[in-house]
Amino acid sequence: MRKSQLLEIKKGILANNDQLAEKLRSDFQQNHVIVVNVVSSPGSGKTELLTVISKQLISQGLKVSALVGDLATDNDARRLQSSGAETHQINTNGGCHLNAKMIKKHIKQLTWKNSDVLFIENVGNLVCPAEYDLGENKRIVLMSVTEGEDKPLKYPTMFNSSDACVITKTDLSEAVDFQKQTAIDNLNKINPGIKTFFTSAKTNQGIEPLIKYILHHDD
Amino acid sequence: MRKSQLLEIKKGILANNDQLAEKLRSDFQQNHVIVVNVVSSPGSGKTELLTVISKQLISQGLKVSALVGDLATDNDARRLQSSGAETHQINTNGGCHLNAKMIKKHIKQLTWKNSDVLFIENVGNLVCPAEYDLGENKRIVLMSVTEGEDKPLKYPTMFNSSDACVITKTDLSEAVDFQKQTAIDNLNKINPGIKTFFTSAKTNQGIEPLIKYILHHDD
Repeated sequence: MRKSQLLEIKKGILANNDQLAEKLRSDFQQNHVIVVNVVSSPGSGKTELLTVISKQLISQGLKVSALVGDLATDNDARRLQSSGAETHQINTNGGCHLNAKMIKKHIKQLTWKNSDVLFIENVGNLVCPAEYDLGENKRIVLMSVTEGEDKPLKYPTMFNSSDACVITKTDLSEAVDFQKQTAIDNLNKINPGIKTFFTSAKTNQGIEPLIKYILHHDD
Repeated sequence: MRKSQLLEIKKGILANNDQLAEKLRSDFQQNHVIVVNVVSSPGSGKTELLTVISKQLISQGLKVSALVGDLATDNDARRLQSSGAETHQINTNGGCHLNAKMIKKHIKQLTWKNSDVLFIENVGNLVCPAEYDLGENKRIVLMSVTEGEDKPLKYPTMFNSSDACVITKTDLSEAVDFQKQTAIDNLNKINPGIKTFFTSAKTNQGIEPLIKYILHHDD
């Protein structure tokens, strides 16, 4: 099979995905559900951050649900459930990203229409999920201070396609000599003006502004 | 396009890759070059570890070369070059893994036949590179203590297809409350008996045993 044929097939897959994602987005909007697609490397702290945020949202009287993607295990859905959120795990069985079809299928396991916020925790992968629209309102990319300041330059598609970046585990900044300004500069080279948050799920640093951002549709 | 057709196409791509990888492996063996394919999440410390190891190998009179994969930038090849290794950057332009065809093409940029060790630093991705044999003698998967002990369970294909696991950034173990025994148990659930190393490129912990392992073909 030629490269051009492969590219055609991929184009077709992405076009189908985009179409389905638009339908999902319209459903989400009709039901007044804020949908956030959370992407990052493995181990950047997606589940931990979402647990802290969900707890706070729930304590404010909001209803939170979550779809959690992983190749295997339901560890993350169970961890996130401890916040009080309604969760459902999607196992991709080796697949490297979530797609709109999976969201359409698995969302039926949740009473999402009553939710104020639906989090979609994507598979830990800083490459492949970038191309798949899931019908979200906002895509948020996480990067932890331990990963190095150069990640936006090395994974440009993901950082460019995200609406905001959350730099996590700031409690470790000193231990890893994290260069905040370099990280900001690199982010802005790839996605000028990208909204950036600095958080620690351990100390609660930066959680409040991030919640405000999530709840405001028009930012 | 149906799922079964897509699976057939993927099977064909992988079969072609395997065939080419065997040819590469035979070339590497004929030239007595040890080839190590290094895989991990983004930011696990591949370049840092390879820089420390290459320096030591070169100080022992060995010749080291390296192919470095990234979606964009030549940052890592330049960093690794500071060790004295001969390096060449492969930019995948968005691609999520290296394949045997890329190795065959780009290796021509190196005088690899004179090398004792050739490192292939794969794209930072704990999913997709697992399926692509590059003709290596050994595949080594890194995971940093900051990523959490559950990674082998959540990314089983990568940990199962690797010959050894290097747990990096052990200088941060205390700061992140890393549970060493849990990590070992999880690794062995996925890949029983997998050779495991604990290293810090900062303090040089565990570098010597890892170098011995790399230099011994038959381990």
